[in-house]
Amino acid sequence: MSKITAQSIWEDVGKIRDKAPLVHNITNYVVMNTTANALLSIGASPVMAHAEQEVEDMVQLASALVINIGTLSEHWIRAMERAMKQAQSKRIPIIFDPVGAGATPYRTETARKLIRAISPAIIRGNASEIMAVAADGAQTKGVDSLHTTDAAFEAAQHLAKQYGSVVCISGAEDIIVDNNHFVRVKNGHPLMGRVTGMGCTATAICGAFAAVNADPFQAATHAMITMGIAGEIAAEIAHGPGTMQLYFLDALHQVNQSDIEKRIKIEG
Amino acid sequence: MSKITAQSIWEDVGKIRDKAPLVHNITNYVVMNTTANALLSIGASPVMAHAEQEVEDMVQLASALVINIGTLSEHWIRAMERAMKQAQSKRIPIIFDPVGAGATPYRTETARKLIRAISPAIIRGNASEIMAVAADGAQTKGVDSLHTTDAAFEAAQHLAKQYGSVVCISGAEDIIVDNNHFVRVKNGHPLMGRVTGMGCTATAICGAFAAVNADPFQAATHAMITMGIAGEIAAEIAHGPGTMQLYFLDALHQVNQSDIEKRIKIEG
Amino acid sequence: MSKITAQSIWEDVGKIRDKAPLVHNITNYVVMNTTANALLSIGASPVMAHAEQEVEDMVQLASALVINIGTLSEHWIRAMERAMKQAQSKRIPIIFDPVGAGATPYRTETARKLIRAISPAIIRGNASEIMAVAADGAQTKGVDSLHTTDAAFEAAQHLAKQYGSVVCISGAEDIIVDNNHFVRVKNGHPLMGRVTGMGCTATAICGAFAAVNADPFQAATHAMITMGIAGEIAAEIAHGPGTMQLYFLDALHQVNQSDIEKRIKIEG
Repeated sequence: MSKITAQSIWEDVGKIRDKAPLVHNITNYVVMNTTANALLSIGASPVMAHAEQEVEDMVQLASALVINIGTLSEHWIRAMERAMKQAQSKRIPIIFDPVGAGATPYRTETARKLIRAISPAIIRGNASEIMAVAADGAQTKGVDSLHTTDAAFEAAQHLAKQYGSVVCISGAEDIIVDNNHFVRVKNGHPLMGRVTGMGCTATAICGAFAAVNADPFQAATHAMITMGIAGEIAAEIAHGPGTMQLYFLDALHQVNQSDIEKRIKIEG
Repeated sequence: MSKITAQSIWEDVGKIRDKAPLVHNITNYVVMNTTANALLSIGASPVMAHAEQEVEDMVQLASALVINIGTLSEHWIRAMERAMKQAQSKRIPIIFDPVGAGATPYRTETARKLIRAISPAIIRGNASEIMAVAADGAQTKGVDSLHTTDAAFEAAQHLAKQYGSVVCISGAEDIIVDNNHFVRVKNGHPLMGRVTGMGCTATAICGAFAAVNADPFQAATHAMITMGIAGEIAAEIAHGPGTMQLYFLDALHQVNQSDIEKRIKIEG
Repeated sequence: MSKITAQSIWEDVGKIRDKAPLVHNITNYVVMNTTANALLSIGASPVMAHAEQEVEDMVQLASALVINIGTLSEHWIRAMERAMKQAQSKRIPIIFDPVGAGATPYRTETARKLIRAISPAIIRGNASEIMAVAADGAQTKGVDSLHTTDAAFEAAQHLAKQYGSVVCISGAEDIIVDNNHFVRVKNGHPLMGRVTGMGCTATAICGAFAAVNADPFQAATHAMITMGIAGEIAAEIAHGPGTMQLYFLDALHQVNQSDIEKRIKIEG
């Protein structure tokens, strides 16, 4: 298993800040601004582009492609397919977020169709979403999970096996799974759940780490730990979901080696 | 008349925080993030979904449907119609925001067409918007009102009678009107008007209250008082529209029974 | 040359706050909320409307039209063309932002097509974007510049001559160019580059100044100085990109004559 340490995380953070890798996002309207700001705060260079006429040109400039189905329509799905195909052919890692899978058949089927066509390097969702993508009958409450992270463990293993993807179930605790092993991340803070788009932000941050680290298991785990630590730092001074949102971005920008060393909480 | 008291408001806030009702929003691009965060801050569970392929499935999971015409297009109007029809058949309350009605014929006519087809439980707009929906010739400056709340009083009564809706005119003071009575809410702060989407946020918050309170007059009034109080609390520490925006979300999250008791300002 | 002084800037800020001019924006999804809030913070009245059915009606209510190609699609391009044509016929100043020109042929060609059809009063972009619009072969990294402001000076002069537009190259330093002269603005702070949409915000703020000042060279220069000063004020108290974003809006709202007198930094 790829060893996850404070040092391995810090090296990736340094690479992101140093190289400012371009991360191409085809994501939902609700969080575009938030995830662009999170990517800038960690040190990456975000671009949001969804027009079918340009996604293939844009993605080949990028070091990672983030696909998020949070607000769907037919044009966007076609753009996602084209971008994913191009990313695959250029060996650019794809990070996939099945937002709201399990809430409506349209979302569940779209998520499945996209990952069946092109296997993502990383799939990140909450427990309900991961369960819904893996098997019929799982339910999601809008975009919120009805299940604990652990309940989705088998579903995640199933998806990891089927698609060769790293699967990240995020929640109060996060579990990152691939075909052979898993790790549990215990960083984070409940106030993160009161800010819209924190899940989508986690997916985007996975994109930043995958852009500088060729091992998707390590990239996803580094991303979730860094997110969680930034959330903990922000929550210490936040007075509610509003200030939380901003202090979280500040923390992504400022997080240093000592923060990571002191706060990292994983079980492997 | 449904009695409005600090106690009746506080009970609804408790229900929202306890049940986290799903509020389905088909709203404009500008405020999606803001209204999702406001709904999360008050304790509700927001979902934004506008694809024709899924709005009927999504709305039936929800406890309220918020329709906002702030950025229109043909696809979205069809999705709104389908969602509203489904909400009506499942007896899910509809809250309608005619953003910018009176600025262009397209907006005025779309607003009228939608509420003529399906009567909303609550219509919330600024004075110009309410006047424009009720009668020809009223003018709106983009999305800002050219009229005082009082100037729209007759128009609101007319709409309330015609559609059986509760009509909420928001502004420096808010007036909530139904077929038989009205109440004037004097909570709020001028700095709220310098933050984009505060009107749209009021509409979304009406959705959160309507999700837990079957009386739309009470729900709308509770929502406007809670908004206004959160605005007052935020303005006391804000230094401008930027910090106002965030402290307002913090205040929605923290507002307690004593805040409501001390600050409630209504005339009935 | 139109004289640029603290006094000339302050007079325009006063007019914006006094008249609250309507600024019509057809802009990208990522920054809509941010630029609407910036316009409200400086004292203008923003409206975002992109439906082909209404852009002609909306723009004639406005005192300036801001066109930003940050997230494109065919419908939006047609709406931009119609709005620009109507603005031209009503002598409403057009401010144009070629976001991401140089990153994909679709963006470069769309930017060129739009400004070739209707010359904007002001074109604002980063160095790579201005170079890409002016000549083939220039490259943009997503939406971030690969060049210094000075590298785009000739390209800006070329565009200014060809279209009779004022061209504003923004970056660590800004250069504003028209057919006969130029000015260099040295206000600003590096943390502004870590907040998404700061360039788009600059374009929107150019719209606010152009709405009250018939001289586009002066309007663009006033806007860039005011932006830069607000950024400096915000950076003094910000702890990262999150708080920067909000304190910047506060500063736009609060900036006074003495701030401008003390901080203005130009070379002409």
